[in-house]
Amino acid sequence: MAIIVQKYGGTSVGDLDKLRQVARRVAARFEAGDSPVVAVSAMGKTTDELIALARQVNADVTIGIPPAARELDMLMVTGEHVSASLLALTLQAMGHPAVSLGGHQAGFRTDQAFGKARILNLEPERILREVREGKIVVVAGFHGSTEDGDTATFGRGGSDTTAVALAAALGARVCEIYTDVEGVLTADPRVVPDARKLDEISYDEMLELASYGARVMHNRAVELAAIYRVPILVASTFGETPGTLIHGGPSVEQRSKVRGVAYDIDVAKLTLLGVPDRPGIAATIFEPLGESNISVDTIVQNVSHDNLTDLTFTVARGELEQARAILEPFLKDVGARGLEADASVAKVSIVGTGMQNAPGYASRMFRALADGGINIQMISTSEIRITCIVDDGQVTDAVRVLHEAFGLATISG
Amino acid sequence: MAIIVQKYGGTSVGDLDKLRQVARRVAARFEAGDSPVVAVSAMGKTTDELIALARQVNADVTIGIPPAARELDMLMVTGEHVSASLLALTLQAMGHPAVSLGGHQAGFRTDQAFGKARILNLEPERILREVREGKIVVVAGFHGSTEDGDTATFGRGGSDTTAVALAAALGARVCEIYTDVEGVLTADPRVVPDARKLDEISYDEMLELASYGARVMHNRAVELAAIYRVPILVASTFGETPGTLIHGGPSVEQRSKVRGVAYDIDVAKLTLLGVPDRPGIAATIFEPLGESNISVDTIVQNVSHDNLTDLTFTVARGELEQARAILEPFLKDVGARGLEADASVAKVSIVGTGMQNAPGYASRMFRALADGGINIQMISTSEIRITCIVDDGQVTDAVRVLHEAFGLATISG
Repeated sequence: MAIIVQKYGGTSVGDLDKLRQVARRVAARFEAGDSPVVAVSAMGKTTDELIALARQVNADVTIGIPPAARELDMLMVTGEHVSASLLALTLQAMGHPAVSLGGHQAGFRTDQAFGKARILNLEPERILREVREGKIVVVAGFHGSTEDGDTATFGRGGSDTTAVALAAALGARVCEIYTDVEGVLTADPRVVPDARKLDEISYDEMLELASYGARVMHNRAVELAAIYRVPILVASTFGETPGTLIHGGPSVEQRSKVRGVAYDIDVAKLTLLGVPDRPGIAATIFEPLGESNISVDTIVQNVSHDNLTDLTFTVARGELEQARAILEPFLKDVGARGLEADASVAKVSIVGTGMQNAPGYASRMFRALADGGINIQMISTSEIRITCIVDDGQVTDAVRVLHEAFGLATISG
Repeated sequence: MAIIVQKYGGTSVGDLDKLRQVARRVAARFEAGDSPVVAVSAMGKTTDELIALARQVNADVTIGIPPAARELDMLMVTGEHVSASLLALTLQAMGHPAVSLGGHQAGFRTDQAFGKARILNLEPERILREVREGKIVVVAGFHGSTEDGDTATFGRGGSDTTAVALAAALGARVCEIYTDVEGVLTADPRVVPDARKLDEISYDEMLELASYGARVMHNRAVELAAIYRVPILVASTFGETPGTLIHGGPSVEQRSKVRGVAYDIDVAKLTLLGVPDRPGIAATIFEPLGESNISVDTIVQNVSHDNLTDLTFTVARGELEQARAILEPFLKDVGARGLEADASVAKVSIVGTGMQNAPGYASRMFRALADGGINIQMISTSEIRITCIVDDGQVTDAVRVLHEAFGLATISG
């Protein structure tokens, strides 16, 4: 009896026909001798529809207090409960023993941060009992319950987290994430038609790719998988290609290679001009942003001239105006000459382990962008990633140029 | 702080606009100083739609095992959860503190009879805490959870049971059941246009009326109310009329009066002809029906001639063929001459406390029916009810004739 965890997202269970295809896939593994524990999301656009209902309730009433996260969580998880029980019913109708469990029944204990709860503990006794009794277990994803017995969701994409946590707690051989793409690709196929599926990728590489725009999996789930060393297989629900294995160890032959190109256009740039170069300035600037929950991303501070420097950083576009409003009052305090904002920028990144020890990659990236007529506005690097901020009108060109320059369409995955 | 329990059915929360009207009604009581605890059903036809989904899953799959009650229960309660959280969100948007609770959070502990679970215990601590904190509590009706943490529903109409159980456990002053009719009527208004709303009625009378066709409230909820002496007010959600109070004690001036006329066309009649009149015969016949879960209603055994008697009883129409198939093999064993079935009968009843001690009522009933040209096929009586089985084509005439004969349109409620 080897437990495998599978997760099917909203598009995979979008209607009863797809639900049956999913059931057949689960049943095939069960018949082959595995013990499947399956996490499911809400069907199709259910979650969006439920949120729209809640907003409408709100919009039509005079006082207009924002919907409380606790009640929204109660409302939203009904979507996952519906798909879980329907999948269990489908499996039963096919003649297989199956049982559906809500997050609290499955043993997910969370903190009280409704809408973005963290898992405190997973008590797998009930699931293990059902597995021992020979049942396929279907878990409603995306939520658990607080000490008080209240429902708390993990936030968008949280069913990935459900699946990885289950795999970790149950000691599953593998956590299979089924989705509407065939795996992790070297680039966005809408931008690069010959983008290629990777056969394997490391957790770190996956995290960098995802942070920088590859929307295959929720990052939090990948982090959890990295901590508990749970191998993840990302594959297509309705295809037969083998998918991409996300794993812990680097496979030697893959090192020092660019694995993929990511991009993100939800980016805006803020520059504080002529900031005096003295200790504590950065803290003075970034603390109020942090207190307002604005995530600051790439930060670049140039060398100073006459003890003055320009400090540039990026934020999400939707937070640009709020960030600007927060910073304006501080300009005089820090002695800055001015504040410039630019919402028409984007990030393009190459990702691959070992690049930092092989400086040739950076220069090849910059050369490729220059040859493509693309101007680099800012540069930022991590151990396994090089990111350039470019004009957002040029970002898809940049992705294509880099995919080509690093031969990603032809290198074996 | 006086707790009042209110229940709103599916039509009362059929869309967001109605939900807002319900919220205003709840809020008005809250502002008047009461502590409302509100039980809600699923919105409109949600439950039917969810059951249809489950059946479709089933119908489209080859093997076709009936949907398991446990999974159906998981599926169905999502409807109640949606209305509960939306009502809480609406109340919050109006500026009132509100919290929604699922059956397990509200403390409903049930047995494992999925689809028709009985309440074993109601632990009201969580609700009382929320009430003490000044919140309006909205409870998703119709279900609780088993010792195992599984969701179990009370069966159709179960939100009435939720409300009455809450009122009993919380020591509520009154349990208000809001519905789409203005209260308990003297007869079905589709049959008798001048049927009149009763201002009050006893539990027993209500039970007889409901059993015999008045579909205002779930009988089980009335029984529960009778046991715990919870006064129930049945009233219209969107009207301003005062409704009908269902209570424990007879109000003296109301005794020995016919309170209402009920009818039921979901009736079929079976007659065993020429049964030898010896001990054990009835048991031999009714035991196999009971084992097959077929409810036998009115039973009439005439006096015997030549030690032979005819035994007649009624079942629900949908169970007639099954009942006949079960009885056929026993005919020879019991020595009966034959079995006759008739699906074209109906029940008509008059209900009122004290009738048994005032035989005039029975003869007035029979006379009224005779004057109306309606033949009586069988008669059955209880303490507070007289029922006649008549041809189903004449049953609405019978209701009108009796409503008129007992002056129900004009007697004060």
